[in-house]
Amino acid sequence: MNESLKNIKAMTFDVFGTVVDWRSSVSREVSKIIKSHVPDLNTDDFADEWRAGYGPSMNKVRTGQLPWMKIDDLHRIILDDLLKEYKIDQLTEDEKVDLNHAWHRLDPWTDSVEGLTLLKQNYVISTLSNGNVSLLVNMAKFGGLPWDTILSAELCHHYKPDNEAYLSTSQFLGFPIEEIMMVAAHKGDLSSAKKNGMLTAYIPRPEEFGPNTQIDDKTEDYIDIVAKDIIDLATKLDKLRD
Amino acid sequence: MNESLKNIKAMTFDVFGTVVDWRSSVSREVSKIIKSHVPDLNTDDFADEWRAGYGPSMNKVRTGQLPWMKIDDLHRIILDDLLKEYKIDQLTEDEKVDLNHAWHRLDPWTDSVEGLTLLKQNYVISTLSNGNVSLLVNMAKFGGLPWDTILSAELCHHYKPDNEAYLSTSQFLGFPIEEIMMVAAHKGDLSSAKKNGMLTAYIPRPEEFGPNTQIDDKTEDYIDIVAKDIIDLATKLDKLRD
Repeated sequence: MNESLKNIKAMTFDVFGTVVDWRSSVSREVSKIIKSHVPDLNTDDFADEWRAGYGPSMNKVRTGQLPWMKIDDLHRIILDDLLKEYKIDQLTEDEKVDLNHAWHRLDPWTDSVEGLTLLKQNYVISTLSNGNVSLLVNMAKFGGLPWDTILSAELCHHYKPDNEAYLSTSQFLGFPIEEIMMVAAHKGDLSSAKKNGMLTAYIPRPEEFGPNTQIDDKTEDYIDIVAKDIIDLATKLDKLRD
Repeated sequence: MNESLKNIKAMTFDVFGTVVDWRSSVSREVSKIIKSHVPDLNTDDFADEWRAGYGPSMNKVRTGQLPWMKIDDLHRIILDDLLKEYKIDQLTEDEKVDLNHAWHRLDPWTDSVEGLTLLKQNYVISTLSNGNVSLLVNMAKFGGLPWDTILSAELCHHYKPDNEAYLSTSQFLGFPIEEIMMVAAHKGDLSSAKKNGMLTAYIPRPEEFGPNTQIDDKTEDYIDIVAKDIIDLATKLDKLRD
């Protein structure tokens, strides 16, 4: 175990997949809003396709092909394309707005609220998500996530994995970057966090993509600690503090 | 009572003076750190003078005489000047850093935690303070303030009463500006909030400046509601919702 883990002052969390179960939540919301129009829609597939558009659309912003745009707006562009692809033209504008806000109403994994509540006793806990601030605030109220504050790509106009997003945590939280831990279910996020000087915790989420999830438990030199969920992370860090 | 108060979705709070008692808290911290060196120091006066340097130093940033600088840094500049003025040269650098962080350790007024907890059930509640993010996060942990998120002049690099600070609440929280209420103990803050389209709540704090507080209970057309404290504000708004 890495001795530098004793220096943690703050923890910043990836959110989609790491703290909340976007797939079953979006599938549920799609079901509520579209099913009456399209009874045979596979809502899990729809959720997967919506999510699959996310990385490429952010990359267009990261490379300057699109101007700065928040995730709500990118989600809406992808949604409009999907509705065309699926030939679904029965939704009103209000229904589309509501459906796009499905991403504000994602259920936490069953360990998230308890785990964050434990960590909050000893550390500053914050999001560090590509989701915009209002999405993350609404999601926290929806699911009872007890963040100390919301940090977002929106605050520095740089999506992860741009360096600026990771470095902004030190600027905003007022701790040296070496004393802030990035927590994520995705190795790429942690590899980029480590390049920028952060501590890293890996929490694989074997159900993130439903039956399609590829579990990756290979050790990596850029990962400081692995935990099976957020409660387990709190327990392991507590033992280090003893 | 203004019918538009029924539209409130979010409330943003001025912090120094409105939610926390900066004067007696800073006086206490000054006492802890300086008194052993300077036993006859009037710590209330010291707190008042430190606070008095705050507006003018922010104005230098607002008018471009100083580059963007966060409140921690402005507080430190004022502190160094005060220590010179008082001819206090016995503090170590660590003691000065600790003393400057007195502003991260301010006690809430006795109604603040309960009042915010009540309001949080129905509204998004956030700071909108000239304090920097880390100052506000640390203060919330110190005093148990249950913010949904931290909004700060630091996020838009504009100190209140610049318009940008008020307008940023709508951008970050995702509600029309007309559905966000600014809550403050200072009329100037509310007048500027109203010019930018916000709803406004006035909570006079008769002890903010100790015995020097000038109480101003004159009605103003830019104030939508007056309450004696944050619990009273929650109670009054609850009645409106019935």
